[in-house]
Amino acid sequence: MSEAASSVVVQKYGGSSVSTAEKIRTIAKKICDRARSGHRVVVTVSAMGDSTDELIALANDVTGPRTSPSLREMDTLLSTGELVSSTLMAMAIHSLDQDAVSLSGQQAGIRTNAIHGSARIASIDTARILRELDSGRVVIVAGFQGLDETGDVTTLGRGASDTTAVALAAALSAERCEIYTDVDGIYTTDPRIVPGARKLQEIGYEEMLEMASLGAKMNPRSIELAAVYGVPVLVASTFDDVPGTLIHGGEPTMELRRAVTGIAIDRNVVKIIVRGVEDRPGVAAGILQPLADAGISVDVIVQNTSDDGTTDFTFTVGEADGQRALDLVKRQQDVAFRDATDGGELAKVSIVGTGMQNGPGYAATMFSALAGAGVNIDMITTSEIRITCIVSREDVTAAASALHDAFELDRAE
Amino acid sequence: MSEAASSVVVQKYGGSSVSTAEKIRTIAKKICDRARSGHRVVVTVSAMGDSTDELIALANDVTGPRTSPSLREMDTLLSTGELVSSTLMAMAIHSLDQDAVSLSGQQAGIRTNAIHGSARIASIDTARILRELDSGRVVIVAGFQGLDETGDVTTLGRGASDTTAVALAAALSAERCEIYTDVDGIYTTDPRIVPGARKLQEIGYEEMLEMASLGAKMNPRSIELAAVYGVPVLVASTFDDVPGTLIHGGEPTMELRRAVTGIAIDRNVVKIIVRGVEDRPGVAAGILQPLADAGISVDVIVQNTSDDGTTDFTFTVGEADGQRALDLVKRQQDVAFRDATDGGELAKVSIVGTGMQNGPGYAATMFSALAGAGVNIDMITTSEIRITCIVSREDVTAAASALHDAFELDRAE
Repeated sequence: MSEAASSVVVQKYGGSSVSTAEKIRTIAKKICDRARSGHRVVVTVSAMGDSTDELIALANDVTGPRTSPSLREMDTLLSTGELVSSTLMAMAIHSLDQDAVSLSGQQAGIRTNAIHGSARIASIDTARILRELDSGRVVIVAGFQGLDETGDVTTLGRGASDTTAVALAAALSAERCEIYTDVDGIYTTDPRIVPGARKLQEIGYEEMLEMASLGAKMNPRSIELAAVYGVPVLVASTFDDVPGTLIHGGEPTMELRRAVTGIAIDRNVVKIIVRGVEDRPGVAAGILQPLADAGISVDVIVQNTSDDGTTDFTFTVGEADGQRALDLVKRQQDVAFRDATDGGELAKVSIVGTGMQNGPGYAATMFSALAGAGVNIDMITTSEIRITCIVSREDVTAAASALHDAFELDRAE
Repeated sequence: MSEAASSVVVQKYGGSSVSTAEKIRTIAKKICDRARSGHRVVVTVSAMGDSTDELIALANDVTGPRTSPSLREMDTLLSTGELVSSTLMAMAIHSLDQDAVSLSGQQAGIRTNAIHGSARIASIDTARILRELDSGRVVIVAGFQGLDETGDVTTLGRGASDTTAVALAAALSAERCEIYTDVDGIYTTDPRIVPGARKLQEIGYEEMLEMASLGAKMNPRSIELAAVYGVPVLVASTFDDVPGTLIHGGEPTMELRRAVTGIAIDRNVVKIIVRGVEDRPGVAAGILQPLADAGISVDVIVQNTSDDGTTDFTFTVGEADGQRALDLVKRQQDVAFRDATDGGELAKVSIVGTGMQNGPGYAATMFSALAGAGVNIDMITTSEIRITCIVSREDVTAAASALHDAFELDRAE
């Protein structure tokens, strides 16, 4: 076997791809074909279909409404979902006369910190995986889980089987990491909102990270990890044999040189308005600190000075965190500010592209396109490769369509 | 806290006792009451309700009819059932403001040999369990599972959560092991067959082992283990607060001195008849060796010499193994014997009692009671504390009732 032929490929299959025995058998065949074509194949699987949600519901049932389930127990409970799918996948591969072995996160050498529910991978000891690969086996690793220093099972957070796959690819110096899912790639924008959305052949890590953080269906942490270790990531359809999208950090091809690569859409944004804030240094930071402590990400922040010497400031958070964020801020009312109110349900529409950092005029094009579509801009925030406008939720489709047209994203190079 | 008050109790709850969130909450309350009364409580749980059977069905679905699922993968798959029930139990206890922690077999220090599907416990390192108990926690151990030397998960066989519980009780020098289940104790015989069956207050290990091997609802290996380590075992109802049956090895009380303690019934017996066996040493043993190699227990064996210088022999196996046993024996047809046939569906009815070993006449009483009930005896086998008759399956009720009357088992001392 030539050196090139024996390179490692890491594949990841999401929960909807392994939701039935039939689907597991279909994927097993795909994996066998790949192994027989000369690759050393490592596969990560998510839990079957809705099984994680079912386990969470059970946990809430036994715990009752007064208390939340212990995160330590929840991690062991939820880790069983991936143990089930990974052992079933190994069995399905066996029945096709290909040797295979399933490994739990622990057996795969995945060590994490002890933050139950959102642990970070600290290290991967690849000894056992490599030994199994050397024995000619396909290795199926239970995604989403690891072991902390005390020997307790941890999980990496929802959607983190992507992270397991990319981390394994990095640790094994894999040729690439392939994420198979129920969409067939990364689109210029959400095709359900803008029918003209076009699938990208490739996208850079930074752009993908912006897109992922802004609602595209990938775990942002996995993209960060891929960028740090330079792991090429293919996002493709599990069951449709069509080309996917390659996320990489190599030399930009023609397509990557396009200034704006995609439009990210996030409908789940709420605004909180804090009025009558004392105008002295550190007050605003003090008001937001409890949110940071509670793990709530504050997104866009805008501050205006009022006539009376105090300032108002406005910020957005994800809708799921909205009520909790408002409650946390209100605890400081009357001490640090006059009042805090729910500013309503909004949405974020962003243009993303590495080309933007070297050229002017993108903001102007964006604003005039939105104005032309009759969309009012509530707030604006930018990064080096992104411009985000906060708009009212009912304007999302008009805004995304106008921007898709203005930056000619429907046209392939 | 006095020394007596802080002794360890090990409890085990079977699958039907933890089949719903509601039942888990009810048991959690029972466990908390026990912990608050001053005991150090270790609990072993089986998988919820039918979840093990559902996982087996899934495994067969992905594997297809041509092959059997790998035992190594099956063990990890099935071990998840007990991880689910043990973490849920810990959460339910937490919600009652009692500290608790779930431990997998591995975390509980249970090491086994590497016989997947029917592993034996090699050792238990109790360090972590003791540390958790010292911290004031109830410890919930996932039953049925352990870890072998290579770091792979093993299981101890169906019904082996009993074995986990007794082994933990032995390793922790527990005051006693309590097996909670959907029956409220050990009866003189199966109450569904003989309405006059009476619950025993106590039974000796040896008698219980015979009863368990002969169909009573306990894992025989757990009784062996209890006998070896002298662990008193209480079998009682999970949800009904009535006295159970204590299995122990202490001085026999009045009840234990009764000669015959119970009638064991096993309806699932089939007979295999091998005719025209060459009459030279070792031939019969040679015919049965493949069954032993396949893990099939041969029970009663009867041999008769025919007129033509060959012998016939007849043996019984459990019904589940019947077809496989016949197939294995038939492979040697024409070499070692003339023909082998299915001898039909039968049943075993046994009288069990330690008192029998010191007195004559029990066999005579048994045979005359069966004759009086018009029950024909097909085959007979005995041990020191047991006499077993093989009868036709339709005679089971008549046989058991006649024996229950003849040995006056309906009358308490």
